[in-house]
Amino acid sequence: MKELTPQMKLIKAQAEKSESKIILLIIDGLGGLPLPENGQTELETAHTPNLDSLVKGGICGMLEPIQPGITPGSGPAHLALFGYDPLHFTVGRGVLEALGIEFPLEESDIVGRMNFASLDKSGLLTDRRAGRISSEKGRELCSLLGQIKKVDGAKVFVIPVSEYRAALVLRGSDLSDKLSDSDPQAIGVPPLEVQPLNPEARNSAHMVNKFIARAKNVLSTQHPANMVLCRGFGKYSPFPSMKEVYKLRSAAVVTYPMYRGVARLVGMELIPTGEKIADEFNTLRENFPSYDFWFLHIKHPDSAGEDGDFQRKVALIEEVDQFLPSLTELKPDVLVATGDHSTPCTLKAHSWHPVPIVLSSQWVRPDRVERFNERECLYGGLGRFPATELMPLSLAHALRLRKYGA
Amino acid sequence: MKELTPQMKLIKAQAEKSESKIILLIIDGLGGLPLPENGQTELETAHTPNLDSLVKGGICGMLEPIQPGITPGSGPAHLALFGYDPLHFTVGRGVLEALGIEFPLEESDIVGRMNFASLDKSGLLTDRRAGRISSEKGRELCSLLGQIKKVDGAKVFVIPVSEYRAALVLRGSDLSDKLSDSDPQAIGVPPLEVQPLNPEARNSAHMVNKFIARAKNVLSTQHPANMVLCRGFGKYSPFPSMKEVYKLRSAAVVTYPMYRGVARLVGMELIPTGEKIADEFNTLRENFPSYDFWFLHIKHPDSAGEDGDFQRKVALIEEVDQFLPSLTELKPDVLVATGDHSTPCTLKAHSWHPVPIVLSSQWVRPDRVERFNERECLYGGLGRFPATELMPLSLAHALRLRKYGA
Repeated sequence: MKELTPQMKLIKAQAEKSESKIILLIIDGLGGLPLPENGQTELETAHTPNLDSLVKGGICGMLEPIQPGITPGSGPAHLALFGYDPLHFTVGRGVLEALGIEFPLEESDIVGRMNFASLDKSGLLTDRRAGRISSEKGRELCSLLGQIKKVDGAKVFVIPVSEYRAALVLRGSDLSDKLSDSDPQAIGVPPLEVQPLNPEARNSAHMVNKFIARAKNVLSTQHPANMVLCRGFGKYSPFPSMKEVYKLRSAAVVTYPMYRGVARLVGMELIPTGEKIADEFNTLRENFPSYDFWFLHIKHPDSAGEDGDFQRKVALIEEVDQFLPSLTELKPDVLVATGDHSTPCTLKAHSWHPVPIVLSSQWVRPDRVERFNERECLYGGLGRFPATELMPLSLAHALRLRKYGA
Repeated sequence: MKELTPQMKLIKAQAEKSESKIILLIIDGLGGLPLPENGQTELETAHTPNLDSLVKGGICGMLEPIQPGITPGSGPAHLALFGYDPLHFTVGRGVLEALGIEFPLEESDIVGRMNFASLDKSGLLTDRRAGRISSEKGRELCSLLGQIKKVDGAKVFVIPVSEYRAALVLRGSDLSDKLSDSDPQAIGVPPLEVQPLNPEARNSAHMVNKFIARAKNVLSTQHPANMVLCRGFGKYSPFPSMKEVYKLRSAAVVTYPMYRGVARLVGMELIPTGEKIADEFNTLRENFPSYDFWFLHIKHPDSAGEDGDFQRKVALIEEVDQFLPSLTELKPDVLVATGDHSTPCTLKAHSWHPVPIVLSSQWVRPDRVERFNERECLYGGLGRFPATELMPLSLAHALRLRKYGA
């Protein structure tokens, strides 16, 4: 079990039970940059009457996901939003994928991300994603690899994630995750041997290489998926749950496996939902009374940002805005809308820029911000603040933190 | 070698090579205070059309050199600008002076600042600067002191810096820098004995006192420079270089030895230049393609601030502004203009006030600031932030930092 940071210890000591309710609406990749043509960001371009109305009665600011200049991956960015310092609470991608499909990981399991891939006759990689095989085919191949039950005394699990994506779990004693990748991140070259990154990892490296050799054998007739590539090994170490730290019964409405994994890691219940934005809002509404804290994750705007599709990102933000009244009607004690990081369409990638945030509650001290966008939220009452401070602020506004000291 | 701080370790892990270029223009002592007569600071009084135009397309803020309320010396202030936490990366003034004249210091050398000074017949100090002898005379006297090659087994080097300024280097085993000053910082009194500040420093104190006695002997016929005063002893411990931490080939255009020392300490190349502001801008322009990171240091406004000469500081800021287009024409990926600290003319000294900063890049998210001065930059998008965050921000805007986590 990972240790709490001093900041979290303080919050844990002050947190108390309550009937109050918090909704955290995360619009993935929300922050943007202005188009050179007209100087307006995605949010500044979007027509967002409902977010703007939230802003008028709420308090705004700019969220710093990790620290100035650091571009976050989605895993660390979300951990920070949930109050878990991502420089302390580190976790491998494979672990998140495995948790995301609710595989029952055990403490000290070693997990790697695994891709099915294509090798030519001379052993060179021709496709790192095996022609993007279907999820069904992926599941079939994982179950075929299930015949490899052990290597050198360690139990082996091969878990399908989606399409060509899978996770490899090794369970045994004295395993180490200090392992290099077998994925060379290039084609026209052979896969790499997994190397131990310290002397203690020698046995584990040997086991993974042995598994890969046997998997290659099992898959020999399965072209295009006749090979596996492994990367991002990590050891699973459970995190203190939001229930334990914050005294919150928490639930997540999330579609992508990786985000489901982060939610599971901090002990949220995953509520089954559909693929559409409307489905996710409906799922929350239907289950609202059963939980204290809701994490509602909307992935689509980030994907539009990565595609550099400005108009689509604008339209998706507007779509989210249209569903916002379905949340305010529930009268949560605290409603927060923000993103996990910025994904400017001009950059076509995650970026380090802070993210606009609005916190609405009966107990906010309002500021002068009138519109929900990057330039306005700069002047909000919350200022620019680290994402790890969002949970204490949300709990406080939900009257869930006791006075400190006499 | 000094250890990296956790923040620097993170940046080092994320930094990657690139062709992008960063220019850091440091206008020494830039920040000011309003004149009581009209309520305008030096920067508010100056006509700075080019800095203002940089501001309109850039992002602004206020730089906190060390921490609120702390007035920085120039050494720590510059280390912070280069991303080296000055409370962790401590260094003696003598070390900076010796590095500034490119003396080949070795790890564990003990270095002190040394002044030539004047003693009267009864052994009392009459001038702590020996009548400000010329640099030529200073060099001649240092070479005369070169006959003192050793004291008690430690090698001795006496290095001219400029005019009456020199540095004393002791090289040997088990030397300690926990030594008091011999400079009493007053006249009409005798020089002080150097005292060990802990028991381990007893031998080193003895050596320094022995050196001073022999130097006094050698200089006995050299009035007004018939004595030396030592202060600010420090042990040399190399710093991790900007190349190692940031993957930057860095260069400095600097005139004063102390600043050259700071630049050398973090591994910058020193590019020879002239004394005038124009010379320094030209030197950068001529050598621009050969380096990734440029530190351009303009000393003069700080001197005007220390003299309390408001109009001269205004004029010098205006002169720097006139040369700014010669930098923007080079189209660096990131151009930062700021100061190392404030030197308000009304105070005639360095001060603790934060310093206005503008960062210009294709990837900034603009704010509403329209003029480059203390009052406007308060409302910039960068907010008020520690100087040690400037390097991560500059690297990020030059697209030189990898994403953190998946």
